[in-house]
Amino acid sequence: MGESLWWRWFIEWGTPRDAHMHAVKKVIYQGRSKYQEIEVIEFYELGKGLVLDGKTQSTLYDEYVYHEALVHPAMIAHGEPRKVLVVGGGEGATLREVLRYKTVEEAHMVDLDEQVIEVARKYLPEFHQGSFDDPRVKLFIQDGRKFVSEREAEYDVIILDLVDPMEGGPAYLLYTKEFYSLVKKALKPGGIVVTQATSPTFSLYAYAIIRNTLAAVFKHAVPYMTHVRSFDGMWGFVVASDRINPSQLSPEDVDAKLVKLVEGELRFYDGTTHLWMFTLPKHIRRGIEEEKRIATDKEPVFMPA
Amino acid sequence: MGESLWWRWFIEWGTPRDAHMHAVKKVIYQGRSKYQEIEVIEFYELGKGLVLDGKTQSTLYDEYVYHEALVHPAMIAHGEPRKVLVVGGGEGATLREVLRYKTVEEAHMVDLDEQVIEVARKYLPEFHQGSFDDPRVKLFIQDGRKFVSEREAEYDVIILDLVDPMEGGPAYLLYTKEFYSLVKKALKPGGIVVTQATSPTFSLYAYAIIRNTLAAVFKHAVPYMTHVRSFDGMWGFVVASDRINPSQLSPEDVDAKLVKLVEGELRFYDGTTHLWMFTLPKHIRRGIEEEKRIATDKEPVFMPA
Amino acid sequence: MGESLWWRWFIEWGTPRDAHMHAVKKVIYQGRSKYQEIEVIEFYELGKGLVLDGKTQSTLYDEYVYHEALVHPAMIAHGEPRKVLVVGGGEGATLREVLRYKTVEEAHMVDLDEQVIEVARKYLPEFHQGSFDDPRVKLFIQDGRKFVSEREAEYDVIILDLVDPMEGGPAYLLYTKEFYSLVKKALKPGGIVVTQATSPTFSLYAYAIIRNTLAAVFKHAVPYMTHVRSFDGMWGFVVASDRINPSQLSPEDVDAKLVKLVEGELRFYDGTTHLWMFTLPKHIRRGIEEEKRIATDKEPVFMPA
Amino acid sequence: MGESLWWRWFIEWGTPRDAHMHAVKKVIYQGRSKYQEIEVIEFYELGKGLVLDGKTQSTLYDEYVYHEALVHPAMIAHGEPRKVLVVGGGEGATLREVLRYKTVEEAHMVDLDEQVIEVARKYLPEFHQGSFDDPRVKLFIQDGRKFVSEREAEYDVIILDLVDPMEGGPAYLLYTKEFYSLVKKALKPGGIVVTQATSPTFSLYAYAIIRNTLAAVFKHAVPYMTHVRSFDGMWGFVVASDRINPSQLSPEDVDAKLVKLVEGELRFYDGTTHLWMFTLPKHIRRGIEEEKRIATDKEPVFMPA
Repeated sequence: MGESLWWRWFIEWGTPRDAHMHAVKKVIYQGRSKYQEIEVIEFYELGKGLVLDGKTQSTLYDEYVYHEALVHPAMIAHGEPRKVLVVGGGEGATLREVLRYKTVEEAHMVDLDEQVIEVARKYLPEFHQGSFDDPRVKLFIQDGRKFVSEREAEYDVIILDLVDPMEGGPAYLLYTKEFYSLVKKALKPGGIVVTQATSPTFSLYAYAIIRNTLAAVFKHAVPYMTHVRSFDGMWGFVVASDRINPSQLSPEDVDAKLVKLVEGELRFYDGTTHLWMFTLPKHIRRGIEEEKRIATDKEPVFMPA
Repeated sequence: MGESLWWRWFIEWGTPRDAHMHAVKKVIYQGRSKYQEIEVIEFYELGKGLVLDGKTQSTLYDEYVYHEALVHPAMIAHGEPRKVLVVGGGEGATLREVLRYKTVEEAHMVDLDEQVIEVARKYLPEFHQGSFDDPRVKLFIQDGRKFVSEREAEYDVIILDLVDPMEGGPAYLLYTKEFYSLVKKALKPGGIVVTQATSPTFSLYAYAIIRNTLAAVFKHAVPYMTHVRSFDGMWGFVVASDRINPSQLSPEDVDAKLVKLVEGELRFYDGTTHLWMFTLPKHIRRGIEEEKRIATDKEPVFMPA
Repeated sequence: MGESLWWRWFIEWGTPRDAHMHAVKKVIYQGRSKYQEIEVIEFYELGKGLVLDGKTQSTLYDEYVYHEALVHPAMIAHGEPRKVLVVGGGEGATLREVLRYKTVEEAHMVDLDEQVIEVARKYLPEFHQGSFDDPRVKLFIQDGRKFVSEREAEYDVIILDLVDPMEGGPAYLLYTKEFYSLVKKALKPGGIVVTQATSPTFSLYAYAIIRNTLAAVFKHAVPYMTHVRSFDGMWGFVVASDRINPSQLSPEDVDAKLVKLVEGELRFYDGTTHLWMFTLPKHIRRGIEEEKRIATDKEPVFMPA
Repeated sequence: MGESLWWRWFIEWGTPRDAHMHAVKKVIYQGRSKYQEIEVIEFYELGKGLVLDGKTQSTLYDEYVYHEALVHPAMIAHGEPRKVLVVGGGEGATLREVLRYKTVEEAHMVDLDEQVIEVARKYLPEFHQGSFDDPRVKLFIQDGRKFVSEREAEYDVIILDLVDPMEGGPAYLLYTKEFYSLVKKALKPGGIVVTQATSPTFSLYAYAIIRNTLAAVFKHAVPYMTHVRSFDGMWGFVVASDRINPSQLSPEDVDAKLVKLVEGELRFYDGTTHLWMFTLPKHIRRGIEEEKRIATDKEPVFMPA
């Protein structure tokens, strides 16, 4: 058998007619929680990664790209985030980015699946870097929607780091107009929310619907995106607020605020990266403009299965 | 057998430990020229595509992204392209974009492999859209380097639409300092050259070396990039000139020039897309800065095999 | 890319959790008839093969094993086959084996899908070896069951060379008690029928049910099997007659009859091979014994999809 | 994601142009010894299996077929085995079959890789069924060839349960004439040896060479085979002795000896199975006859890599 013929493979299906094969160096953890199958896999090309129900959540290769893209635009645009809520984000890396902010006094994290967090604590130290033990952090094992519905005017920033909205999955009701209204109520006035918003490459309609849905609840709802190799394409986010429009920030504004607010140096995000993420090429802009639907509890948005 | 279990697959290997599986709807053409294996395949997810030696060259799904990204920044920045040379570009789609310019009087195309062009003519009409028969076009079946070496002060714009620089492949000597000096001689004074420059995702070092090599020959050598799903990641380009720096163009400049110079409407490229492509995120910028090598005939740059 | 990383693959799914990957050298023909998708593929390891709806029907590597195993035990056991009917068998290779018999005066072949036969004629000459043009042959394009139902006491040997019984497929009503009663009527008294009977490896229950069903109609119904690499396992057959039990033939009987009846030399079948095929190992024997069901038009036997 | 799209796969490459994909339910153990990568995998279709360096050694689905085929013909033909040596056989299942014999007083097992045996002890209880702890068993962690070279007229039966002879692998010097001469010396006069002999399907030449090599040392050297689905084809063995020719045993002889010698009931092996295994079809017989080479230390036989 030649050097090049490998036997352990993870096949991530985009559709039944399209898949990505990743050679597996080592299966570090494999188990099944009440909610999903959980794996920590060391990939040959992408390093250690978290996989839920056969879907890569993040890998050491570029988790910093995804997590910095998710967290910093909203935090920087807010300008003085003191109390932050993360919904989802089991790896602890979203929390890690939130805790870089000198202004942050409290960070709540709510996740449905305790076992994911236990696995992350034990097997993903490079991801969370001890964030779960930061004294500013409070962890809630609970349904995210229920948790948010019980809060009022409490958070400066809410970060929705959720699995994709799949039919029958645990998260699709966290992408609806009704949920975003609860989010708005849970934010302090002038607060800001950001959500991962699926892929402009593979589900442009879903990305657009999430933008439209947030735009139905907030004055500003701005889509942005980055490339995440581990996800095999561009990845989208929407940031929304009644007060703030992050796309108005110049690279210089962003860089100045980073110096003021953030400990240490980031690897991906800075003023120029901000500009890049909020600038969308024509075919993506057009796809968003042409999509008119919004997602409601009754008619939610789904990713293709 | 369920709907979802497909039998005809094209597996594009990035490395021996990483591959992308594409379901094949139909094999439209399969043959072998003196230089390479040539296939025209209809993919389920990406539509019809050209494959050379098992590597996807472009697909209907997003060939317009790649070809508009390759052609328009150099052409628009030049401002009045009259005579243009395309090296490579067998599909005819690069030519198609060049021919959109009202100012273009002559377009030369030089390609090594006549059979690729015959296959494109016959099976890829959506790609070339009759460009080979445009009276402004002159086609040369010849070695690209030799062709360029025999020209002097002839072209406004030279477009290098080449296969990647592979060890033992036909194109690696079209990515060296010596070749770029020949290109400079073949350009009119103040002319501009653009080359595809491999992937910032998969071979950032090669992208950076191509930038460095052009910067050793031209006053301005500017890297830019877009996402090409058919290539599974970001794709890079470098545009170089002694006179022009396309990254200085504002979105408004670009849009105004497009109106003036180009027939019809583009799907991907406009002023905002231009800004997006020339704005690079931090980790890409850093990777380019840290790479100091240039490619020469003696020490060329290679993609990993 | 190393020698060993191939891009064109045929993936034959046994189940959604088990598949065989075959590298494809060339797609010789690809088309769709009224009934099915038809491909002639040149495999690297197995040579040219016929594929219907993503299922390998036979390949040059070992089609002789399958076709000799299907045809000769029944023909030899009959002893003087004059008029033979082949149902299915589009490649023409079953016919080829039938025509080796000096006693054969007429060979009828009935197949539903004319396009399969046209493709075989044109692209599979090594399989049929001109059999379609033998003056003893008469070809009927028609539904096999209907054809058989209209014949009476006409054939010495009937050979059922059918696709597997799949739910919704074209052949599952050619594996039922009702159909076998029609077959019995179409045979001359003392005639013999043989059918392919799916795989003792992958569908032992189906193999056993086909045996049981023939045993409900004929006095003798004897299962036998061989290994067919192109099918990834053992392949089963059942031969049935009111007069003859082929498992009683000694190797010497078989060899003597071969000399007397057959032109030329066979590659797979002889007396010892006959003994091997009719001798079943314990776990297969037991599996057959334990299965009590028979297949009827109302409750047919199906292979898993 | 539909039911049918699975993400964890084991791809067993036969050649770089042919592979079998097995869906993995669970990775039970994964580690690397001094000699090889060791995995215990639960496959969806085949159950738990032992994999060494990416090659399936046996699975619960049909390990009984392989191990009964390996052990019983030699033991039964011997008639009164008292002292037995197993070389290799890390799972402990070969030992298990040996220990069924009421006559067996001592069973030695010698294996190079202690870690394989530890893994088997812990994770493969269904395979060894406690055999390692049987008081008749003595385990030696040592090079098999060296061990055999130091024994003289000691064993009634020697069973070679080795990995295939691969270039650079640990076992190819256990398939040579020199080694078989050492085996002969280690056997009591009239003793018998059996070896796994690679696949008549995938490496008929190697199967034949092993037969020829044993025939150069022993008076009788008889090839036989069975089908092993986990190995994707027919699997071969050669049994050799100066005294005994197991192919002479009738089914009735075998069944009578089984009753006399063996505790409990076997699942695969009996008199009829014996006949089946020792009866070879024509193309296999011919392939063996045409191969004239033998394997020596200087010119060993290798499986293709």
